[in-house]
Amino acid sequence: MSQPHYVLTLSCTNRPGIVAAVSTHLFESGCNILDAQQFDDTESNCFFMRVVFNPLNGAPTLEELRQSFSQVAERFSMAWTMRDRAEKRRVMILVSKFDHCLVDLLYRRRLGELPMDLVAVVANHPRETYGSLDFDGAAFHHLPVTKETKLEQETRLWELVRETGAEVVVLARYMQVLSDGLAAKLAGRCINIHHSFLPGFKGAKPYHQAHARGVKVIGATAHYVTSDLDEGPIIEQDVERISHRDTPDDLVRKGRDIERRVLARALRYHLEDRVILNGQRTVVFTD
Amino acid sequence: MSQPHYVLTLSCTNRPGIVAAVSTHLFESGCNILDAQQFDDTESNCFFMRVVFNPLNGAPTLEELRQSFSQVAERFSMAWTMRDRAEKRRVMILVSKFDHCLVDLLYRRRLGELPMDLVAVVANHPRETYGSLDFDGAAFHHLPVTKETKLEQETRLWELVRETGAEVVVLARYMQVLSDGLAAKLAGRCINIHHSFLPGFKGAKPYHQAHARGVKVIGATAHYVTSDLDEGPIIEQDVERISHRDTPDDLVRKGRDIERRVLARALRYHLEDRVILNGQRTVVFTD
Amino acid sequence: MSQPHYVLTLSCTNRPGIVAAVSTHLFESGCNILDAQQFDDTESNCFFMRVVFNPLNGAPTLEELRQSFSQVAERFSMAWTMRDRAEKRRVMILVSKFDHCLVDLLYRRRLGELPMDLVAVVANHPRETYGSLDFDGAAFHHLPVTKETKLEQETRLWELVRETGAEVVVLARYMQVLSDGLAAKLAGRCINIHHSFLPGFKGAKPYHQAHARGVKVIGATAHYVTSDLDEGPIIEQDVERISHRDTPDDLVRKGRDIERRVLARALRYHLEDRVILNGQRTVVFTD
Amino acid sequence: MSQPHYVLTLSCTNRPGIVAAVSTHLFESGCNILDAQQFDDTESNCFFMRVVFNPLNGAPTLEELRQSFSQVAERFSMAWTMRDRAEKRRVMILVSKFDHCLVDLLYRRRLGELPMDLVAVVANHPRETYGSLDFDGAAFHHLPVTKETKLEQETRLWELVRETGAEVVVLARYMQVLSDGLAAKLAGRCINIHHSFLPGFKGAKPYHQAHARGVKVIGATAHYVTSDLDEGPIIEQDVERISHRDTPDDLVRKGRDIERRVLARALRYHLEDRVILNGQRTVVFTD
Repeated sequence: MSQPHYVLTLSCTNRPGIVAAVSTHLFESGCNILDAQQFDDTESNCFFMRVVFNPLNGAPTLEELRQSFSQVAERFSMAWTMRDRAEKRRVMILVSKFDHCLVDLLYRRRLGELPMDLVAVVANHPRETYGSLDFDGAAFHHLPVTKETKLEQETRLWELVRETGAEVVVLARYMQVLSDGLAAKLAGRCINIHHSFLPGFKGAKPYHQAHARGVKVIGATAHYVTSDLDEGPIIEQDVERISHRDTPDDLVRKGRDIERRVLARALRYHLEDRVILNGQRTVVFTD
Repeated sequence: MSQPHYVLTLSCTNRPGIVAAVSTHLFESGCNILDAQQFDDTESNCFFMRVVFNPLNGAPTLEELRQSFSQVAERFSMAWTMRDRAEKRRVMILVSKFDHCLVDLLYRRRLGELPMDLVAVVANHPRETYGSLDFDGAAFHHLPVTKETKLEQETRLWELVRETGAEVVVLARYMQVLSDGLAAKLAGRCINIHHSFLPGFKGAKPYHQAHARGVKVIGATAHYVTSDLDEGPIIEQDVERISHRDTPDDLVRKGRDIERRVLARALRYHLEDRVILNGQRTVVFTD
Repeated sequence: MSQPHYVLTLSCTNRPGIVAAVSTHLFESGCNILDAQQFDDTESNCFFMRVVFNPLNGAPTLEELRQSFSQVAERFSMAWTMRDRAEKRRVMILVSKFDHCLVDLLYRRRLGELPMDLVAVVANHPRETYGSLDFDGAAFHHLPVTKETKLEQETRLWELVRETGAEVVVLARYMQVLSDGLAAKLAGRCINIHHSFLPGFKGAKPYHQAHARGVKVIGATAHYVTSDLDEGPIIEQDVERISHRDTPDDLVRKGRDIERRVLARALRYHLEDRVILNGQRTVVFTD
Repeated sequence: MSQPHYVLTLSCTNRPGIVAAVSTHLFESGCNILDAQQFDDTESNCFFMRVVFNPLNGAPTLEELRQSFSQVAERFSMAWTMRDRAEKRRVMILVSKFDHCLVDLLYRRRLGELPMDLVAVVANHPRETYGSLDFDGAAFHHLPVTKETKLEQETRLWELVRETGAEVVVLARYMQVLSDGLAAKLAGRCINIHHSFLPGFKGAKPYHQAHARGVKVIGATAHYVTSDLDEGPIIEQDVERISHRDTPDDLVRKGRDIERRVLARALRYHLEDRVILNGQRTVVFTD
């Protein structure tokens, strides 16, 4: 794909003429719409849109397009972003002992499934926990944490986010609860994978809870982190059928597969600007 | 299938020799095992088994088999049942305004998918609610209910269960909560369909709860009724993927499909002696 | 929904400015876009779009809108339709001995899931095959067929289509192959349900074929009928997991559930103008 | 699990008394049955069984058990195996350019999901194709192949199988067709992953075929290799929903996820003695 592809996302109060204004502006700026998805939430009267387009010959630069589009945006009081699809987001991954999600994300990145620039892997366990795992040049940081040192550890974590310019933070089975303060700073750009089909089985040891309750299907949930534990806006969920024969250990094993595909999908949707927040929920323009 | 097929189910504390004792007894009684499934719950140390067998020429009658098997059962302190598969269970269906589950069960019965003898349809809405629906000769009873008349209505319901000899009671989207007393009388033989993926979204209007929470998958749950609302042992669950585009009304529509297949499966499992209670959970020997 | 909702579908060769032209035209005609989905097939360079919109106060009538839109359509050489969502399509259902799909469609229509006007049920089996089934006032026609009378039967069938003004013909497990001539006359508006996951197991007795091959998943396929048997454009497919324990009869039973949900979905998509042909394939704008 | 667990699998012509004979023999040998699954194929009149058991104190050794069980087996003309679950099978993995299945199998092995002893990784591409991939000490062999050198390459492959004592050969997206001769030598112990939902889309480029046909669901199939290409007994299949928006490249990406979970499941079933051949089909005793 030698030609640049830009992605525009926007949300605003709904009213007639938005699509016409956006598409006419792009057309008159010499751009061709390749894909567009929209959603009109009739409950909240909010309008959401994602447009992929490419500039034709002689079209303005991304900066010029942003400049000129800001007038359309202002007219409709839009919240909006416009990015070059080739521009990779800077991502930091946090992990604890279980590394199946981390391994999966690293492999998908190598395959080109996840357009991201991995700036750091941060763990509360030492480097040797992850054996010969290849971080592809990303820095590894061991930030151990105890109840007493949580404040200091989070302070260091936040510094790392700032130093590395991380735009997205992924909790890839990071078994520590972020403080309200840090959750607030990372609002809308910190993705967690919870190993249950939320809102069922919040909190600790969800597979053991699921086994005790005798459910016939288990799942995993990727969501944005908020100060309200396991209550953040859901990006993606998936499930798998189980039976009475499955022990909690079997659920942990089956769950690993669900967790890694759910987190990978959610992260890809986020990196490709497919997710827009809609209050406590999300609009996800899937492919 | 002109030859009789018998189904034996049993549960007991696990110890060596159960399978040998059961299979040897059946063999020496002139019976041939057609299918057998077992489960050894290592947590509770309970053993569960379902055996389908047919008597060969000159084999004893079902009554004689029961008699002789009772000695094996006693030796291992088994809870057990032995039934002729051709003997249909007597079933009563309770329904409220929404009749999609009722219609589905009636149709599956007509096709031969559900081996049951429908002894009554009971509704808290009048007959005309169900239009030209054909109950295949089953009696229809209109038992309206208000907060004030609940006791009387349940008394009449229980009389109907006894008069008709109903062995199984199905709450096919019956929108009334059974009293603890009635739930206790029907323990282990009253199946409810809850229109959510339990334990998520207990109580009223689960599809609206699901929409408000922004989940990406919805489901339905068939369970035995207990005095603890929406907490009874789960027999079957299934799910379907949704998106931000789905309104609560869309969820209701998609949910109808999930509800009817989940309830039909759970009822069939029960009618075919595939479900054995294991404390607050179930063992389901699926086909 | 007292306000009218109109649905516009269109396809044409892709070139810059289509979305702008369509949305600006609707906006300037006093209409508000409620939903829009588009697809740009980069292989064939075809563009597809579906727009749901409502006229604001004082807006032109549907006829006037069609008139004025035809100029936009001409400019881009569009194939297009514009319909009032409240205007129900006239549907004829063809059925043979197995009536599970028929029963399901009738019930969903009664619930309001399928916006259609049922003009006739046609069967090659006599009325009593369908017992006390309630066609909700639709005429029933018994058109028996043998190898010798196929031409006459199809001639009568075609007359019925014309007399009733049927716009859509549904083969709801109609076990006769339409002649090339009739298939051609019904091109793009005749939907069949095939009881396999196409392209696997074309032709007769697909469940027996599936059992013989030992597959672990079975499925059903709804497609437009073409003269090339089981090769028409696919609208919808779904599957279910099976095991070695399933006999061909079990597959038939499990398949019934898949067939009815796949056919119902495909028909609903068609009735709601969500399906656009793209050569031998379909574009389906799902909800 | 410090106590040994043994797994018995058997198949034979069905006749009364098999379960009784097997379970009684195990009981009298001082063994306790932990799990047993059986299947009675009424078409072929074959009986299949898998029993997991552990010897109680003072029980005979595995060798003694094999010795004594051989008499039971002889009586019923059984094909049978009896193994210690702790005894890992020796596995060789063959791979071509795409390494997603290889990477996944290596990772699952490290996690303990796949009880196997990896004796070699063989590729028709050089070592650097797999970058920094860690084979955990397994030998890597580069065996390039052309039409002209196929015979020599397969001869060397077969020598490797013999030298390493490989009991199982996994074609983890190995893009070469084995000759009939080699396929015959590896009958029943060579597992391939085909990137389509067989029997649909046999042969080359199945995702491109699927895209051209316009299917709405894609899948993958793990099967034993036979001389009849893509026709061997199926062990496991799974699928995923797609849409008109998916390009062939999208199908390749989505397919990778299906392929790796299908191959991993099939291999695990094989390694845990859960698969028994039944003519051109398989009996799979899942957990």
